[in-house]
Amino acid sequence: MPSQTPERPGRFRRTALQPDEAQRILIERMSPLPEERVPLAEAWGRTLARSLTAPHPFPPFRRSAMDGYAVRAEDLRHATQEARVSLEVVESLPGGVAPTRSIGPGQASRIMTGGMMPEGADTVVMLEMTVSPATEDDALPVVTIGRSVPIGVNVADVGCEIQEGAEVLRAGQRIGAGESAILASCGNAEVGVRRRPRVGILSTGSELLDVSEPLEPAKIRNSNAPMLAAMVRESGADPVMLGQVPDDAPAARALIDAGLRECDLLLTSGGVSVGDYDVMVDVLSSPDVELLFNKIAMRPGSPTTAAVANGKTLVALSGNPGACFVGYHLFVAPALRVMLGQTPYAENRSFQAYLGAEFPKVNAYRRYIRAATDLKDGTVWVTPTGDDKSSLMTTIVNADCLIEIPPLKEGLAKGHLVTAWRL
Amino acid sequence: MPSQTPERPGRFRRTALQPDEAQRILIERMSPLPEERVPLAEAWGRTLARSLTAPHPFPPFRRSAMDGYAVRAEDLRHATQEARVSLEVVESLPGGVAPTRSIGPGQASRIMTGGMMPEGADTVVMLEMTVSPATEDDALPVVTIGRSVPIGVNVADVGCEIQEGAEVLRAGQRIGAGESAILASCGNAEVGVRRRPRVGILSTGSELLDVSEPLEPAKIRNSNAPMLAAMVRESGADPVMLGQVPDDAPAARALIDAGLRECDLLLTSGGVSVGDYDVMVDVLSSPDVELLFNKIAMRPGSPTTAAVANGKTLVALSGNPGACFVGYHLFVAPALRVMLGQTPYAENRSFQAYLGAEFPKVNAYRRYIRAATDLKDGTVWVTPTGDDKSSLMTTIVNADCLIEIPPLKEGLAKGHLVTAWRL
Repeated sequence: MPSQTPERPGRFRRTALQPDEAQRILIERMSPLPEERVPLAEAWGRTLARSLTAPHPFPPFRRSAMDGYAVRAEDLRHATQEARVSLEVVESLPGGVAPTRSIGPGQASRIMTGGMMPEGADTVVMLEMTVSPATEDDALPVVTIGRSVPIGVNVADVGCEIQEGAEVLRAGQRIGAGESAILASCGNAEVGVRRRPRVGILSTGSELLDVSEPLEPAKIRNSNAPMLAAMVRESGADPVMLGQVPDDAPAARALIDAGLRECDLLLTSGGVSVGDYDVMVDVLSSPDVELLFNKIAMRPGSPTTAAVANGKTLVALSGNPGACFVGYHLFVAPALRVMLGQTPYAENRSFQAYLGAEFPKVNAYRRYIRAATDLKDGTVWVTPTGDDKSSLMTTIVNADCLIEIPPLKEGLAKGHLVTAWRL
Repeated sequence: MPSQTPERPGRFRRTALQPDEAQRILIERMSPLPEERVPLAEAWGRTLARSLTAPHPFPPFRRSAMDGYAVRAEDLRHATQEARVSLEVVESLPGGVAPTRSIGPGQASRIMTGGMMPEGADTVVMLEMTVSPATEDDALPVVTIGRSVPIGVNVADVGCEIQEGAEVLRAGQRIGAGESAILASCGNAEVGVRRRPRVGILSTGSELLDVSEPLEPAKIRNSNAPMLAAMVRESGADPVMLGQVPDDAPAARALIDAGLRECDLLLTSGGVSVGDYDVMVDVLSSPDVELLFNKIAMRPGSPTTAAVANGKTLVALSGNPGACFVGYHLFVAPALRVMLGQTPYAENRSFQAYLGAEFPKVNAYRRYIRAATDLKDGTVWVTPTGDDKSSLMTTIVNADCLIEIPPLKEGLAKGHLVTAWRL
C-alpha cells in the first residue's frame, strides 16, 4: 500500500529558487532549432531564422504616388487660374509601363499611382488639380493646369522606403502581415524559418478520465493536456499528445524516454507535489536524470520541476490547472521562444499597471495571479479574473496577464501600482 | 489609349461615408457561417458556435486540495503541540479512488491532492502539519497531529468552481487555453465551431510581379496578396489565393464571379482610385452589382469600396499597402468576426492613450495612423511606427494599433489623449 510508505528522503528537502533564477537556468539549456525553408504562403506565424537585408532599394524606381501628370515644376512656376499653362501630353504611363519618352519643356506624361516617373519630370500634378484633362479626341493631347507645384510633390524617390542593404527584418521576428509584405517585396518566394518545436504532453494522475469518457466517482476528465496543447500552439509549436504516465516507475520512464526521443521538449502535468504517490518524483530522481530545479519560491506552481534526460529537456508542471497555466507561461513559453530563435521574453512583456481590485492577502511567497488588462482613459488596470486558487480553470478563460505580487506583510489596496506579465 | 478617355460619369461623384457608417452598412450584410464539429484537439483558435452549459457540477465530488489527512475538525478542536491527537488511519485515498470507509470519531483517511473526500470528514490536515505520518510498518496505522484545523480547510465542495447548468462558455468565444480546459472537463471530445470563412484574394495592377519573378523596370512584386493572406489567417479565416485580375472588364468579371462562387468573401486590392485605368471600377459599376459604399471620409483608404454580387460580398481595398492594411482592419476584420459568430468588434478594441510623438499635420479627414502601444508606469502610450504615407509597408511591421485622429485645424502635441484601435 504505497500510501503508507514514509516520505522518501529529499522529498521535503527541496531548495526553492526564485522564479527568475529558475527561468535563467532553464533558458540557458535551450538552443534554437534548425532552419527550414517554407513557401511564403505558409510562413504566417513562423519565426524568421535569419535577418533580411534588402536586395534592392524600394521603391526600385522613381514612382508617382498619385494619378495625374508627370511634369517639370519649372513649367508651372507662373501658372495660376488666370494664367493657365497647357502642356503637351507625350505618353501615358499606367503602372508597370516603363517610360519611352523623357519630358522636355512644355511636355507632360499622364501617369497613374505607382507609375514609373519619366526622365525630365520632377513632380506630379494630381488629376483633380488639372483644369481639363487630355482626351483621346484631341489631335495633339494637351493638359491645362492652373497652379504651380513644388518639385518632388507626389513622387517617391528610389529607396525612399527601403535602402539597398538595409536590414529590413530581424532574425527571430514572428512573420505577420507586415513581415509577409516585406518578404514578398524583396522576392522571397521561400522563407527560412525555425522548425516548429515538437512538444510532447504527458499527464499523470489515476483520477484522470479521457475527455470522451463518462464521469466516475472520484474521477475527473483530463483538462490539462488539451489546455497545454492550446498553449503550445499559441507559442508557435506543435503539441504531440502522448497520453498518460502509467503508475509504475520503469514503465513511466520508458514512456518518457520514448517521448523525449520523439520530441524537442517534454511537458508533464501532475505528480510533482510533496507527498504525491506519483511516479514523476521517482523518475526524476534517477541518477541519469539531471535535475535543473524542483521547487520555486512562488504560488501557484511551487513544485514546478525541470530536468534534462537523454540530452532533452523535460518540464514537470503542477497538476492543478491554474498552477499548470502559470508554470507554462513562466518557464515553458520562454524556453520555446529560445527554441524558435526568439528572445526569451517578448518585448514589453512586463509592465506596470494599477491593481483593479483589493488584494487582501498576507503573502509569504511571490504570487502570480491570473488577471485581465483594461485600458481606461490612458491608464492601465489589471484585475484578477477571479479567485486565485491554483485548482481553478475558469479564471484562465479571460486572463491575458499575470499580476506579480511580491512577498508582503499586508494586502494591497485597489489602485496600487503592480508589475504584470503579458501572456 | 484608355488613359486619354475622359473620366466616366460618377468617378468623381462618390459620396463619402464616415468610417463607422460604412462599417455598419457592411456588417449588416454579414451573417455567421454554419456550425461544424471538430475534435477538441483541432479546436484551438476556432470560434465556439454555441454556448456551453455545464452538464454537471465541477468538481463533481468533494475533493481535497492538498496532500494530507481527511479528518473531522471536531477531533482536533483541542489539539496543540503539547496535547497532540492521534487518529486511526482507516484508508488511503489517492486520486481516482472512491472512499469505501466513512470517517468516524478518532479516525482519518490519508488523502492526496484531488482525492475524493470520505463521508464524515469535514477538513484536511496538510501532510506538512502532521507530527508523524502513518507508516506501513504500523500494525494499526496512526497519524499524530499537534494543531486544530477549521472545518472546510483544503476541501473543495461539489460545484464550488462550476455549478451544474451554469453557462461556462459563450457562443462566439475564441477557443484558447482556458476554453480548451473547460471543454475537456465538461466531456466535449468534439466541439461545435463556426466554419472558417474562405476569403478569396485577388490583386489588380499591371505593375505587379509575382514574388518569384525578378524585378523589371516599372514593376514591383505583389506584396498585398501575401499581406492580406497573413491578416486573413490572423482573423481565423482561410485565404484562397486567386491571382491577378486581368485588365479586361469581362474577363475580370468572370474571374471575380468564379472567386465569389468559391469563397465566402472576396477581397481585391488596387484599382479603386479616382482616375485609375483599372477594371475594378468598371466591374463594380455593372447593374447587377449592388454598391454598398465606394468612398470613406478617412485617410488612408478613402476609395475603399464594398459591394454585393451574386449574393456574396466583395471588399475592394486600396492598392497602397498602408491603405490596404487600414482598410482590412477597419472593414474586413469586423466582417469576418460576424461570419465567425463573434461580436463585430473585439472587447476593449478601442482605448484612450497618450500620443507618444507630436502629430504636426493639419488634418482635413479622419486619419488612422499605424502605431505601437507602449505601457509605461501605469499609463498607455501610442506612437506612430513611422511616416504615415499610405504607400509604406515598413510601418506595418511593428504596428499593433491604429491611432484615430479626427479632422483638426492644428496638429497635436506629444502627450495628447487620443483614441486608438487595437489590431
